[in-house]
Amino acid sequence: MSVTKELASWIVASRPEQIPPNVQYEARRAILNYVGCALGGSREAAVEIAIKALAPYFGQPVAGVLGRAERMDPLHASLTNGISSHVLDFDDTTPTNYIHPTSPVASALFAYASATPVTGPDFMHAFVLGFEAESRVGNAVYPAHYDAGWHITGTAGVFGAAVAIAKLLDLPLQKMIWAIGLAATQAAGLREMFGSMGKALHPGRAAQNGYAAALLAQAGFTSGEYGIEGPRGFAPVTAAKYDLSKVTEKLGSEFNLSVNTYKPFPCGIVIHPTIDACIQIHRERKPSPRDIVAVDLQVAPLVLDLCNKQHISRGLEGKFSVYHAAAIGLVRGKAGIAEFTDDTVNDPDVKRVRELAVATADPRIAEDQATVTLVLASGERVVKHVEHAVGNLARPMTDRELEEKFRDQAAPVLTPDQMNELIALCWKIDTLADCRGVIAAATPASSTKSGG
Amino acid sequence: MSVTKELASWIVASRPEQIPPNVQYEARRAILNYVGCALGGSREAAVEIAIKALAPYFGQPVAGVLGRAERMDPLHASLTNGISSHVLDFDDTTPTNYIHPTSPVASALFAYASATPVTGPDFMHAFVLGFEAESRVGNAVYPAHYDAGWHITGTAGVFGAAVAIAKLLDLPLQKMIWAIGLAATQAAGLREMFGSMGKALHPGRAAQNGYAAALLAQAGFTSGEYGIEGPRGFAPVTAAKYDLSKVTEKLGSEFNLSVNTYKPFPCGIVIHPTIDACIQIHRERKPSPRDIVAVDLQVAPLVLDLCNKQHISRGLEGKFSVYHAAAIGLVRGKAGIAEFTDDTVNDPDVKRVRELAVATADPRIAEDQATVTLVLASGERVVKHVEHAVGNLARPMTDRELEEKFRDQAAPVLTPDQMNELIALCWKIDTLADCRGVIAAATPASSTKSGG
Repeated sequence: MSVTKELASWIVASRPEQIPPNVQYEARRAILNYVGCALGGSREAAVEIAIKALAPYFGQPVAGVLGRAERMDPLHASLTNGISSHVLDFDDTTPTNYIHPTSPVASALFAYASATPVTGPDFMHAFVLGFEAESRVGNAVYPAHYDAGWHITGTAGVFGAAVAIAKLLDLPLQKMIWAIGLAATQAAGLREMFGSMGKALHPGRAAQNGYAAALLAQAGFTSGEYGIEGPRGFAPVTAAKYDLSKVTEKLGSEFNLSVNTYKPFPCGIVIHPTIDACIQIHRERKPSPRDIVAVDLQVAPLVLDLCNKQHISRGLEGKFSVYHAAAIGLVRGKAGIAEFTDDTVNDPDVKRVRELAVATADPRIAEDQATVTLVLASGERVVKHVEHAVGNLARPMTDRELEEKFRDQAAPVLTPDQMNELIALCWKIDTLADCRGVIAAATPASSTKSGG
Repeated sequence: MSVTKELASWIVASRPEQIPPNVQYEARRAILNYVGCALGGSREAAVEIAIKALAPYFGQPVAGVLGRAERMDPLHASLTNGISSHVLDFDDTTPTNYIHPTSPVASALFAYASATPVTGPDFMHAFVLGFEAESRVGNAVYPAHYDAGWHITGTAGVFGAAVAIAKLLDLPLQKMIWAIGLAATQAAGLREMFGSMGKALHPGRAAQNGYAAALLAQAGFTSGEYGIEGPRGFAPVTAAKYDLSKVTEKLGSEFNLSVNTYKPFPCGIVIHPTIDACIQIHRERKPSPRDIVAVDLQVAPLVLDLCNKQHISRGLEGKFSVYHAAAIGLVRGKAGIAEFTDDTVNDPDVKRVRELAVATADPRIAEDQATVTLVLASGERVVKHVEHAVGNLARPMTDRELEEKFRDQAAPVLTPDQMNELIALCWKIDTLADCRGVIAAATPASSTKSGG
């Protein structure tokens, strides 16, 4: 059986009760983290601009958007949720493939469930299946696909959104195959956009186009039968090397949600070990910025491939600068949303330390490790090695930490009562009779900056 | 100056009066051919299904669609025009890159001009610029990009639509660069879809997403500055080999419209030489299908790469079968829309000859050549060599032939008076005060099959 057909068959046959409890638990954590990120990003310029530009083209306002008062058609709601939930680079990551997996899938699902009644068990089930399809397609093409320059969150994400919506639409096998094929042929997103709003467009379009792929397939719009593995299909065309067995091996017994991780810092995940080390140095030594005369960063090669921006002026660029990461850790001792604004990027102390920093790629250093060496004006050297960055699988964020992260992001948008209600709803989403309550609880009275 | 910036600068600075008369003439021919193809495809299942699936998501009905009575928002009108104008595989081709260039650009432009007044000179100018950007980006990555499996009409098409709409929006340089970057990061379309409706989705999405890229850039949505040439930009990511000089060399003095060609047959252009040879044999010898005992096709290697489908049952598959091409030429002596229906593909005589045919790739044969050898029951051998297929640059379709092709496609949709009016409007489109008249003349009273 072909890979596309085998994946589609599993999705069509899957039943909610077949999802193991530990996977359901991790799905709830992923959704809580996602909703917080969507709220946190909901007032960013990328979201405001996209709504302003596309509002004249919105369809019937039957769907709500997380963190916004506007209503729109579900396809544009998918797009908007996708942009807001990724724009802060604070969403989740599967370390096997560097996909930020929840945004494309959940952005489409919340848009759908906002306009059409969906039960909690069905929502959770569709989410787990979409997440799994997206991550497995990603595993099959990673790392060649990502190394080539594809933003895998966009390219693999469209599969996840298509599968999740197609499952809610209860598509039969042939149409599930077409939904996957129509997702494959809409896969897009270039890493050249990193540091610009274009990056957040990727999960937005993945959610929107995956949703549309499912609708088209439902109505009988045909695609090639071998969207993933055909000679001109997604894997061969977008990856110099790929392993299709990763799409189908242990389907139903191993779930990629089990290795999902959540970011403590809103920026590229490969610079988290550097931030972690620098925050530790700050806490232990409280060096004055003026006393820092040299900063040496020993990092994994992927860090310089992805995050080598040193001379920057915008917050979005700071999210992809290992030098900025070091500077905020050393100068501020933290790396929250406020440390990746235009203001912080242009802060003289931060700028000075950022421009002092030198980074060296060392293939012996793993991607969750870093060694930071600080030289002070006194001549003293401070060395800090991080073996596993905070937030990764070896040091996962606790449920409590995820709730704190949620509150930090939601506070500017929702009232305290709304926040409490929404957190409680996310923790029990798979038991709800109708998921519209979640979107309602995530809807502020207005979309102005003051929110609430 | 970077390639993206140089292309954007030229587009921003260009004025309608700078387009040479011969390029304007070819633009009129391209538009006439395009409008005919959009009418011809307007009742195809792919169009009906896309409208049915997406109508609940349409925005304000401010835009018309060529050949259909429905009205919708301009983004969905772009999509619908793109599907209908390409679904018959009857639209134009630039032989330097195998792009079907007019569909993505004109589909967006007609949608825009249907909702917003656009003068003829501005329409023509935006069309020429969009066509040029699309074709130049395609030239830079062809053939490696196409060989890898990208449907270049989709991937390069989105640049053309973005540039055309961005020009009508009069975007300044920085925003033109972003429009190009946002196009680059939405480029998509796999050749694995050939023979399915997914193929026609590609120019549709290119038109729609290119249009949206221009709207987003206008509102200030940022992209990377080097969408085409950056290390993780369109060219390096999608082509193992590319030549960026082709994007910018002779900008403003050489126009790709000058090498545009129009298809006499609604199918993959690489099988046109085979059809041409077989029609000539049919006319000269009128062989009875039962007397044909062997059919040998000597063709260029690309033909078998693209059109090697022999055991087929659907009309859309026939468009990518060199064996079907030979069969209809030999059995029917023609290759019109009726020869690529499900009925004809399953006709016993056509099927028998198709399954007899043997094709051999020969690298000494150019892509506009073919040699067909027929063996009859009597033992007689008939050999026909085509040096340049009809419709290619050496044997271009005349204005009269383009009009005949237009009428064949428009007749099931429009009244004779409408057809005459529409042909006249296309020939003088660059002089109109408002292009909405063209869309009005291309709108039937209803979208039922009887049309008219």
